[in-house]
Amino acid sequence: MKSMDELFYAILQDVYYAEKQLVKVLPKLAKKSTNPQLEKAFADHLEQTKGHVERLEKAFAMIDKKPRGKKCDAILGIVAEGEEVIKEADDDDVLDAGILAAAQAAEHYEIARYGTLCAWANQLGKPQIARLLHQTLEEEKKADSLLSAIAERAVNRAAMSA
Amino acid sequence: MKSMDELFYAILQDVYYAEKQLVKVLPKLAKKSTNPQLEKAFADHLEQTKGHVERLEKAFAMIDKKPRGKKCDAILGIVAEGEEVIKEADDDDVLDAGILAAAQAAEHYEIARYGTLCAWANQLGKPQIARLLHQTLEEEKKADSLLSAIAERAVNRAAMSA
Repeated sequence: MKSMDELFYAILQDVYYAEKQLVKVLPKLAKKSTNPQLEKAFADHLEQTKGHVERLEKAFAMIDKKPRGKKCDAILGIVAEGEEVIKEADDDDVLDAGILAAAQAAEHYEIARYGTLCAWANQLGKPQIARLLHQTLEEEKKADSLLSAIAERAVNRAAMSA
Repeated sequence: MKSMDELFYAILQDVYYAEKQLVKVLPKLAKKSTNPQLEKAFADHLEQTKGHVERLEKAFAMIDKKPRGKKCDAILGIVAEGEEVIKEADDDDVLDAGILAAAQAAEHYEIARYGTLCAWANQLGKPQIARLLHQTLEEEKKADSLLSAIAERAVNRAAMSA
């Protein structure tokens, strides 16, 4: 990689792979959740995530590239940790708290990556791509805040009294 | 895992492993950085990270456990992606931008995990642990902001003109 354009393209592929992984994983998280608010949050975020995939496909088009994913070890690691919690939890509320925490780790990975992509897009003179991906960045931040609110309100409190 | 105490202990071990990985990785990132500000940021954050390890050891003691790490696939994935950028970059400024982005992904992983641990510690009636780990959370957020500022100021701008 000799230019920022190439690095931008590489990270775009990384995030595209990550979002497509989440499209597969979020229905499982919704299904495993015992807290109805958490289940709804995952179902809603699945729809948003499909939109994030579409935005990335637009971004690829705007740099004249075909959408391509590139294996993202970070998201695979986060997903593996989430699966481990699902396997090891012997209590519904502990399960909810654990998968909620794993989902927040995934959100923060995306917040970091979209923050980077927006900054680079602006500096590469591609403000349209920056604006497009900034919408996703804001949605990821809101999704993370919503998960924090659910954790505070219900999941953890229930688990404490278990 | 049948209780939030056990889940808290599991995530504490996860973050302990992650911090110890970063103690190993940060000197490499400092060495590979060509931007002096970035090199200094990594060197300074290494000292902070050693303090984070010590705080986690105090937290283990406060729940009467010996400090133990538990393999954290997420941080290993993030580190692997950073190593890939280092291997593939053929330009110093692209290298700096890429490792800076990988470091921000690591910061965000820690921000997610410490946020979770602080919330759980409070809800488990362990406000002293929450206060202790909140100090680390704030330092991780500051480290992330500093990296963003460096990216804006220098690294990316240099890379654009490469």
